[in-house]
Amino acid sequence: MSRKIRYGMIGGGRGAFIGGVHRIAASIDQQIELVCGAFSSDPQRSKDSGADFFLPAERCYANYEEMIRTEAALPADKRMDFVSIVTPNHLHFPAAKAALEAGFHVLSDKPATFNLAQAKELAGIVKATGKLYGVTYNYTGYPLMRQARQMIEEGKLGEIRKVVVEYPQGWLATMLENTGQKQAAWRVDPAICGAAGCMGDIGTHAINLAEYVTGLHIKELAADLTIFLAKEGRRLEDDGNVLLRFTNGAKGVLHSSQISIGCENNLSLRVYGSLGGIEWSQLDPNTMIVTSLDKPKQIYRTGLGYLGSAAGAATRTPSGHPEGYLEGFANIYRNFANHVRAVINGTTPNPLDMDYPTIEEGVAGMAFIEAVVASSANNAAWTPL
Amino acid sequence: MSRKIRYGMIGGGRGAFIGGVHRIAASIDQQIELVCGAFSSDPQRSKDSGADFFLPAERCYANYEEMIRTEAALPADKRMDFVSIVTPNHLHFPAAKAALEAGFHVLSDKPATFNLAQAKELAGIVKATGKLYGVTYNYTGYPLMRQARQMIEEGKLGEIRKVVVEYPQGWLATMLENTGQKQAAWRVDPAICGAAGCMGDIGTHAINLAEYVTGLHIKELAADLTIFLAKEGRRLEDDGNVLLRFTNGAKGVLHSSQISIGCENNLSLRVYGSLGGIEWSQLDPNTMIVTSLDKPKQIYRTGLGYLGSAAGAATRTPSGHPEGYLEGFANIYRNFANHVRAVINGTTPNPLDMDYPTIEEGVAGMAFIEAVVASSANNAAWTPL
Amino acid sequence: MSRKIRYGMIGGGRGAFIGGVHRIAASIDQQIELVCGAFSSDPQRSKDSGADFFLPAERCYANYEEMIRTEAALPADKRMDFVSIVTPNHLHFPAAKAALEAGFHVLSDKPATFNLAQAKELAGIVKATGKLYGVTYNYTGYPLMRQARQMIEEGKLGEIRKVVVEYPQGWLATMLENTGQKQAAWRVDPAICGAAGCMGDIGTHAINLAEYVTGLHIKELAADLTIFLAKEGRRLEDDGNVLLRFTNGAKGVLHSSQISIGCENNLSLRVYGSLGGIEWSQLDPNTMIVTSLDKPKQIYRTGLGYLGSAAGAATRTPSGHPEGYLEGFANIYRNFANHVRAVINGTTPNPLDMDYPTIEEGVAGMAFIEAVVASSANNAAWTPL
Amino acid sequence: MSRKIRYGMIGGGRGAFIGGVHRIAASIDQQIELVCGAFSSDPQRSKDSGADFFLPAERCYANYEEMIRTEAALPADKRMDFVSIVTPNHLHFPAAKAALEAGFHVLSDKPATFNLAQAKELAGIVKATGKLYGVTYNYTGYPLMRQARQMIEEGKLGEIRKVVVEYPQGWLATMLENTGQKQAAWRVDPAICGAAGCMGDIGTHAINLAEYVTGLHIKELAADLTIFLAKEGRRLEDDGNVLLRFTNGAKGVLHSSQISIGCENNLSLRVYGSLGGIEWSQLDPNTMIVTSLDKPKQIYRTGLGYLGSAAGAATRTPSGHPEGYLEGFANIYRNFANHVRAVINGTTPNPLDMDYPTIEEGVAGMAFIEAVVASSANNAAWTPL
Repeated sequence: MSRKIRYGMIGGGRGAFIGGVHRIAASIDQQIELVCGAFSSDPQRSKDSGADFFLPAERCYANYEEMIRTEAALPADKRMDFVSIVTPNHLHFPAAKAALEAGFHVLSDKPATFNLAQAKELAGIVKATGKLYGVTYNYTGYPLMRQARQMIEEGKLGEIRKVVVEYPQGWLATMLENTGQKQAAWRVDPAICGAAGCMGDIGTHAINLAEYVTGLHIKELAADLTIFLAKEGRRLEDDGNVLLRFTNGAKGVLHSSQISIGCENNLSLRVYGSLGGIEWSQLDPNTMIVTSLDKPKQIYRTGLGYLGSAAGAATRTPSGHPEGYLEGFANIYRNFANHVRAVINGTTPNPLDMDYPTIEEGVAGMAFIEAVVASSANNAAWTPL
Repeated sequence: MSRKIRYGMIGGGRGAFIGGVHRIAASIDQQIELVCGAFSSDPQRSKDSGADFFLPAERCYANYEEMIRTEAALPADKRMDFVSIVTPNHLHFPAAKAALEAGFHVLSDKPATFNLAQAKELAGIVKATGKLYGVTYNYTGYPLMRQARQMIEEGKLGEIRKVVVEYPQGWLATMLENTGQKQAAWRVDPAICGAAGCMGDIGTHAINLAEYVTGLHIKELAADLTIFLAKEGRRLEDDGNVLLRFTNGAKGVLHSSQISIGCENNLSLRVYGSLGGIEWSQLDPNTMIVTSLDKPKQIYRTGLGYLGSAAGAATRTPSGHPEGYLEGFANIYRNFANHVRAVINGTTPNPLDMDYPTIEEGVAGMAFIEAVVASSANNAAWTPL
Repeated sequence: MSRKIRYGMIGGGRGAFIGGVHRIAASIDQQIELVCGAFSSDPQRSKDSGADFFLPAERCYANYEEMIRTEAALPADKRMDFVSIVTPNHLHFPAAKAALEAGFHVLSDKPATFNLAQAKELAGIVKATGKLYGVTYNYTGYPLMRQARQMIEEGKLGEIRKVVVEYPQGWLATMLENTGQKQAAWRVDPAICGAAGCMGDIGTHAINLAEYVTGLHIKELAADLTIFLAKEGRRLEDDGNVLLRFTNGAKGVLHSSQISIGCENNLSLRVYGSLGGIEWSQLDPNTMIVTSLDKPKQIYRTGLGYLGSAAGAATRTPSGHPEGYLEGFANIYRNFANHVRAVINGTTPNPLDMDYPTIEEGVAGMAFIEAVVASSANNAAWTPL
Repeated sequence: MSRKIRYGMIGGGRGAFIGGVHRIAASIDQQIELVCGAFSSDPQRSKDSGADFFLPAERCYANYEEMIRTEAALPADKRMDFVSIVTPNHLHFPAAKAALEAGFHVLSDKPATFNLAQAKELAGIVKATGKLYGVTYNYTGYPLMRQARQMIEEGKLGEIRKVVVEYPQGWLATMLENTGQKQAAWRVDPAICGAAGCMGDIGTHAINLAEYVTGLHIKELAADLTIFLAKEGRRLEDDGNVLLRFTNGAKGVLHSSQISIGCENNLSLRVYGSLGGIEWSQLDPNTMIVTSLDKPKQIYRTGLGYLGSAAGAATRTPSGHPEGYLEGFANIYRNFANHVRAVINGTTPNPLDMDYPTIEEGVAGMAFIEAVVASSANNAAWTPL
């Protein structure tokens, strides 16, 4: 098959944030092509948005149902191969379900669904249809996070004991949602974003990254969530602190916030085992500190020859050329599209390409969200996952 | 009174760590003089240790009882003014009690006592004797921590919402206590150091600093302590994660560890209020990040003119001359000695000199230790302080 | 005009480095389309390289002359709009000349040409043909470098006094060129890369960035270049230190190296004026320190609201999503393509889009290279530019 | 000899800066005792200054001549052992000469003298009297600089190729000397501080450190010095850039400044050899980056077990307790005093104690100052040292 993989986008019209990120991520490697979209529930806005990327008007649909129906009817050599879902959370499930059942692969923004029940149902649909499903827990796409995972898999850090993962932000320290800021508005609306605010938007990224890197799973957690701007009218937590217990006996802490003024996307991960540790921050993603017993710390840097195969496959330039958020995100797209291509071609996918978050991580993310909400409602009682 | 303030030391003989720190802290400003000591329970070792500092043999005592008795009998112009206690924890209380009751002021290493009951008893003795008592929660001596406290007092950060305080170390990631390392040995022995390991040794520093800077008090906490080397025979926790609730409604996280390989004394503090935040790390103590709504972060640096009076009084050199742990520690000594001098002279102490941890902080530290231990024993149940 | 801007690439076949960077940079914003290429002097390699991006074989040419001739003969709605030149240095001039004279705009990798005489000739050709010409001094594409330029233009730093610009690398600390490493081989061959090694490859980037940000020009320089691996057979300098004097009286230092082991692309720029300064490092490109008289330093961060229009136009995501080398590079492509589009449409370009390096910077870069080489040959004598 | 080493201080009265630093440095280790001083040319100020440290009035002299004469006449068990000179530069030589010739050892602040001729004369006096002479190029006292020196001596970095040393400050970006700031006033007065401003005050520290760490000597240099505030009336350079050539063929750059706003004492040193490099900054003195061919960079930290004997001997606390400027300065004092003690005792000094700057470094510093001034006066001509 000598052509780009074709996708259609649901959501992501003018003024959206994450839709633009997905389109860049899809474009970087020049292996994926945007061929259609239902960018907005406003038909004209959908057309205008598509025109920004030179799509023909007839492939800029008024809604995802129309898009899926129409595309499914196109000849195989025109039809999109997969759907990218970048709507607010409450639409993730119906759009994914419709696409999968119409025979399209799906790559969805996170969280996978609006609630855990939907996620479990979606897992069944993925299994039943046999279509590919990915969810963009994109921080796992950073080369050094893949390096960390590989090192831990290989036992370089010994038995994992302690995990500290943080994701503080400060953008919601005031009632930004009352100022017409669209990104803020839907993220604080439980009817659109679901049972959790801060934890659903970013805490879930942090936990996904911690589990990805360590290969561990959370056994139970104790969460203390707070709505600091409750008096001002906010209804979902804008801060949370969580104790973590992992299945292997490791312990951890997660804290995440939207009211920590000055914090941007300060996702950071520290993991310590019986032989050493790793320390990484998303704001300087090409640097990872590696610690060992009785030796100087080492500074691992993206793009250098001493890194393993997983990091190497996730890097586009030699060391010294900072790669960032968009490239990490693009690694999810690249792997997913390569998997799609292998399926189309009937070939065995490259194992390195299989490294993207699937419905399994999607379900785990929803389980985490429901667990922190339940724990916090129960005065931080230990709650199993 | 035109002379140095005179002190005697209990503990701190050859091979000790914290005793040497106290002696340097006392010496830096050339206002305090070591005149005697009971440096070791081995009389010869006590004499040898004193000789290292050119003390006459007759003032190197075999035990603290002898020292207190003999010094008390000396004429006023020779007698020590205060006692510095730098023994392992289990001796803090009896030594402090004996000294206070013999009429000596006391500056003790932390924690104040072996357990909370002793601390409360000691508070009574301090009150009854009217002598000064200080406890070296030394991290409050850093100029920028005094700056942070002053800024928060002045309302620069608004209402405090979130506190993240950490103190990870890695030195006990293996059974160092089995290798003859004296510092490790007593710190893991519950008969000597008390009910907590990691939390008593360093977690208590972290909490003291958080309360000092914010002016807040912890209302309740939920602690999950772990002995990662329990199988190898360790009996006290070497790691702990704690959820914090402050009396004003602020929330927080404390995590502390002795098994986080590569961490030294990585004490750090982050505080966020409704108007801004501060971020500080002990490993780079002369830098503090100050955040504000919608403005660039600022880098506050020790020794610069825009700092307030509290930081200014705690600094010895202009900016660009890194001051460190020993100078911060010396700030506790300087303030305490200035207070002693004011008492001797019958003058009103400078309010800036009153900034050192007292028995109140000593009791609070012991209450914290007992609360984390109790909470953890109760599966991280919320435990009031 | 509702279509992507079309380009053909000269050079950049399989195994090349900078060609891939250009293709990503062109793709990120989905406004530019690769339609043809002369990727290699080996016709099969050119076809294979094009096939990696799904180009039809007939538009994968065996050499640039064929490409330019054939494309020029295509109908306007298929023909490429501009040429991207990513060959080694010695081919920049003939390729650019041929393209311009055939009516194509040109975006060339740096340095503009093999020597200064060619650069001046090329400037004449650009003028004569009226076609657009850009040269990818890509570090000017970083948002914070645009912010710095704007701040200096607006007088925020006062009169500029001191410039420190560095670009150390360590990759040529050994004779890598003897190991079959293709990138190393041509960069040390004076017949291919020109009169300078280190200074032509990276020193020229550093100087371009310093002049871009400050708006100043170098009046004269004194350069001390060294071939540290001369005994091993290297013929071009792998290190250089340069004193700089600017036309306004400012002074500066440039040092650049290929033998500073552990350095990657450690380009950094510091500029100090009478009112304040800026400090920036390419390895952490989303952070810039801004200094002012008697005030705390400030940390400017990409994507935040207090930045000016130039930085804003060069950013794709909100703060906290690290953008890097590829996005900065893409800013050059985006601006150039927007200018091309305006020319095609006959509209007035957005002034922000005019911010890309042109033949003027191309000539300046070659003049710098020849000046440092001449100065160093003359024992670091002051040499005018 | 069981007593502290006794010293008298020349200069350093109330309001001085460096005198206080010397006194702290002398006190930290409790092995040195201040017994007298000629703290000020104003006799009352001298007495008041001494009283701050509880000196008897009769040992607070009105001038250094009186002090040296009177002390020399005291019985051996009271007399000072050495003199510490902390006056402005123009008095260094006469005070040192007088002290040495009266039989006292001398530890002087830098630069050694007012000009090179004096330094050479002083070297003769040191030799003739057989007394010890040290000069407080204090940055060599940092543990990690001793580590770096040891590593280079042991060949760990291979043949040294490149040295980058900087010492920018910003405090004289305005005419601070006109505001009554005493530290500024004398440092810009050629009658008091000598032929150079910035280069004499701090550039000389930078060069001393570079030579100390590398073990190399400068063969020749080319300096471009500037008085940026010349129009405002300043008479000595406040900025300088210097090309360096070392005797072994290594090349380097020094830049130093007093007008780089926001810089404090930003002394930094980078050294690269054929096998690796070191990178260090005085503002974070307990961290040193060590680079090696093809391996991750390493972070060396003060106080850890993998450091060598030289660093170990220069450290007072375990890792994680930041030691700073005062402790580094104290290492010079400690070594000097230990050497004095060995001389008094007639014993062989510990080789590690011999590591302090002597008259040789004093002469080299003055030669550097005269060379940069001469070179700059000659339009940055290469000038031998």
